[in-house]
Order: sequence, then C-alpha cells, then structure tokens
Amino acid sequence: MKVIFIGSGNVATQLSLALKSKGVTVTQIYSRTEEHAKELAEKLNTKYTSELSEIETDADIYIYALKDNSFLSFLNKFNLPPEAIHIHTAGSIHISSFEGFTNKYGVFYPLQTFSKTKIVDFSEIPICIETSSEQVERKLIELANLLSAKVYLLDSEQRRQLHLAAVFACNFSNYMYDIASEVVGKAGLGFEILHPLILETANKIKTLTPYKAQTGPSVRYDQKTINTHLWMLRKMPVFKNVYFELSRNIHDRHKKSNEKLSFFKKLQAKFNGFPFFKF
Amino acid sequence: MKVIFIGSGNVATQLSLALKSKGVTVTQIYSRTEEHAKELAEKLNTKYTSELSEIETDADIYIYALKDNSFLSFLNKFNLPPEAIHIHTAGSIHISSFEGFTNKYGVFYPLQTFSKTKIVDFSEIPICIETSSEQVERKLIELANLLSAKVYLLDSEQRRQLHLAAVFACNFSNYMYDIASEVVGKAGLGFEILHPLILETANKIKTLTPYKAQTGPSVRYDQKTINTHLWMLRKMPVFKNVYFELSRNIHDRHKKSNEKLSFFKKLQAKFNGFPFFKF
Repeated sequence: MKVIFIGSGNVATQLSLALKSKGVTVTQIYSRTEEHAKELAEKLNTKYTSELSEIETDADIYIYALKDNSFLSFLNKFNLPPEAIHIHTAGSIHISSFEGFTNKYGVFYPLQTFSKTKIVDFSEIPICIETSSEQVERKLIELANLLSAKVYLLDSEQRRQLHLAAVFACNFSNYMYDIASEVVGKAGLGFEILHPLILETANKIKTLTPYKAQTGPSVRYDQKTINTHLWMLRKMPVFKNVYFELSRNIHDRHKKSNEKLSFFKKLQAKFNGFPFFKF
Repeated sequence: MKVIFIGSGNVATQLSLALKSKGVTVTQIYSRTEEHAKELAEKLNTKYTSELSEIETDADIYIYALKDNSFLSFLNKFNLPPEAIHIHTAGSIHISSFEGFTNKYGVFYPLQTFSKTKIVDFSEIPICIETSSEQVERKLIELANLLSAKVYLLDSEQRRQLHLAAVFACNFSNYMYDIASEVVGKAGLGFEILHPLILETANKIKTLTPYKAQTGPSVRYDQKTINTHLWMLRKMPVFKNVYFELSRNIHDRHKKSNEKLSFFKKLQAKFNGFPFFKF
C-alpha cells in the first residue's frame, strides 16, 4: 500500500510515522513550505515536494492532514488522481467536502491531541471512519486496524459532536490546569505538585462516570470555602469569574430542583459587587 | 507508633489502610456514626467507638479526618490527650484551629482525590505538612516518609492556595469531562471513546506547561468552528455559556494585547442574542 501525505503538521507527523512502523510505504510528503515537507520526509526516509505539480499520481491513498481552511482551498487547486482513495483527518470537516473532486473518498479521524515531537502510541486511540462507499470502508478499516483495535464508523454529524466534546474534555480541561498552575505559582509552589491529582482525576472516570466522580466545595455547597476562594481570586477577575460560574453550574447540576439558584442568590447577597460578569 | 483516627470517611479510610500496610498500629476508629466506625475498623481489624468518652487516651498520634465544620465542633467537645500529637488532614483549615486545645499539633494534608472503595497508591502523593514545633515536624516527616517520598513543608496560606488550585485542576476539569460526556451521549456515543484523549491531556502537562500544551479552536481563533460549536450547543444554554466564556478567556490569554477583545466583539456581531450570560 502506497500512501502520500498532503501536510506535514502534528497529525501528519504522528500518523505517517505510525503507518510506516506498521509496514505502510509513505512515498511522498507534500507541504506548501518546503522546509516542513523536508523535515518530515527525513524522519520517514522518503521523498518530498512543495510543488503541486510534483505530487506523484500513483499512490493508493492520499491523506490530507491540513488546517481546515487550507484543505478546502487545496482541493480547488489539486487534480485528485481518480483511481486513488482520498481521505482527510479532521474532526470538523464534513465528508461531502470531497464531492465533485473525486468519487473515492473518506474521513480518517484519530481522536487524540498530537504534537510533532511526542511519539504517540496509536493502539489505544479511537479512529473514526466515514467513507463514500463500502469498498473504501473496507480499505480504511484495514488501514485503521494496522494501528488500533478501536475503529468507529461515525457519520459527519457524530464526528462533529465528538469534536465538540473533545474541546471540553481536552482544550478546556487543559485550561483548568493552566489556571491551577497560575494559582500554585503565586503561592511559590511548582506545578508538579498537582501532577498526581490531575492524573488520578483523569483515571477516575474510567471506573466512575464524571457525574459520580464530581467532588469539591461546589457539589457539597460548602459556602464558606467558596467565599474564601472567591476572595482569594479577587485580583484575578477572569479566574474568579470562571470559579464562580463553574461552581454555580456544578451546584445546580447536582442539587434537587427546589435548591437550584440558591447558590447564586446567597453569594449575590454576600458579594454586593454584582454582576460578576462584565464585558 | 499507635494512631487513632477521628473520622471514617474517604481520607480516613485510605490513609489508615496505607499506614497500616507500612506497619503503623491503628488502635481505634472513632466516628459519630457507629456503623461507619465499624465498617472501617473491620477493614483494619481494630477497635472502634462512636462515644467520645470511649476514645482511648494512650495513642501517640490522633488524626482528625473530618468535614471542616465537624472538625471545629469536635475540638470543642473532646479533651485532647496532652501528651499526644494531634493532626488534621484538611486543605482549607488553618493550623491555628488547634490553638487553645493542645500544644502539640500539626497538619498532614495528602493532595489527592479519595474515595472509600478505590485503593490509592500513596507513593506518588504529595503530603503537605505544617506543625507547631520542630519536634512535631520531625515526627510528621517520619510518618509521611513511610508513605511517600514527596513531603512538602507548607504553611496554612500556601496550603489554602494549593487547595484552591486543586479545585480547578480536579473538580473543574472533572466538570469538563461531565459536559463532554453529555455531548457524546447526545450523539449516541459512549463516553469511553474520550478516555484516551483525556488521559493524554493529563499526561501531556508533565512534559509541557499547560500554557504551552493549549490547543483547540479558541487558541488559534478558528471562528468558523467556534460559531458552529456555539450553534450546536444552542439547546444547552449552560454548556454554551461555559464554551463561550472559556473560549474567550483562552483566546485572550494567548493573543497579543492589540488582538484582545476581538473574539468577543466579532462573536457579538455574529450572535445578536447578547448578552450570553443571563441570571
């Protein structure tokens, strides 16, 4: 199986390295920036180009791992070899984007956060597949199974929902780590003191639902601690607002209906600096 | 070394089991609720009581692992044996709470999220110590080192900051998992599809700062994806507000000063349903 990668970023890097390690032949890397194409091609010991006209036409599969906007404009410039299968790797791009450009296409979305330097173990990564035909589906399942036992057949709408969920699970939880890092930094402590807690929190939801795993002052409505924390954050208004809103949401989510809003009303009385959210 | 536990909850359970496994003699468990005291005592094969007057007076260390309010009222009812060391396990209770009740006291705060049933490996858990004297400090370091190599000497203010940071790192990141779970659930997917992503996100901050590890549509200001996600959340207004506010914060935090506020202003123009935050 001969594969050509269009793109040389985080996803292209990790996916091409993983495929190569499973015996797939990556024959060429294309990137608009020659230096980037070269950098990845050297890791793979293969050819590269930054010229559209030099992209070889005899591969079995073309994998488009580009930024969303770049992908769409690339399709308009490139003559897609008609015998090959064409797939993109994006969570948020609809499969129909390929329509009019080729008849054999699909999506191959590995649900993970990638960086260029950190080698990723694909065996646990869910790979989400959507295809234009059963023939392409068989081919992509075969490709995915080289890397992972966790292959999901999702349509574009499900994949889009999954991508949205991933923003909360990955991007926003990382922002919570970032705030925590700022808070411990101001106390003169290193962030590594929080590593074991962060790992255990992430591990816990394998055996408990996040709803059941929820702990902290907001879920037990420990008003004294919440007030103290808001006071401690008085000089960091953005973080104070995050603390306030998330605490209220967690409280509302875990209380019986007749207790709802009590959280906000009580705190409103306590802090007469209403409203918390100023634009 | 003879230890008595006051309390039989999550912290008392995991800490007493860990100490016992290291050769410490837990001679008695006290809980206001006899059934709870008995349950833990049976795990430890030791004595228990629910009567204040029956708490033995010959232990070397009394460990108070109670809810914040219960702890303070307990001190007012109990005659603390004067020869022993008295320690509490709470992040947010000042060490001075012991003043007037005993002269040998301290804090022994293991920074972790505990539950009764899940056995915890203490060897990686930071144990934060604060004491009334060097003599007590030596004793608590000895006790902590039985369990963990990561012993920190923190004062009450640092410990309070650490507890605040832990709310973000643990409680709020778990709430992000909870929202993600709801979103994938509505798409007909099981939450386990997100486990590898959540674990990798938590692991990543061991090698990158959370600031550098930040990815997603908000940090690269992918307005198209953000707008789509807000639209997808239109029937979940609480989650939509969380998405909007956190995206704006992340955007502001990662952009140069002259680009700040652009995020909100552009979205405000797009969504004329201003304001997002209604009380």
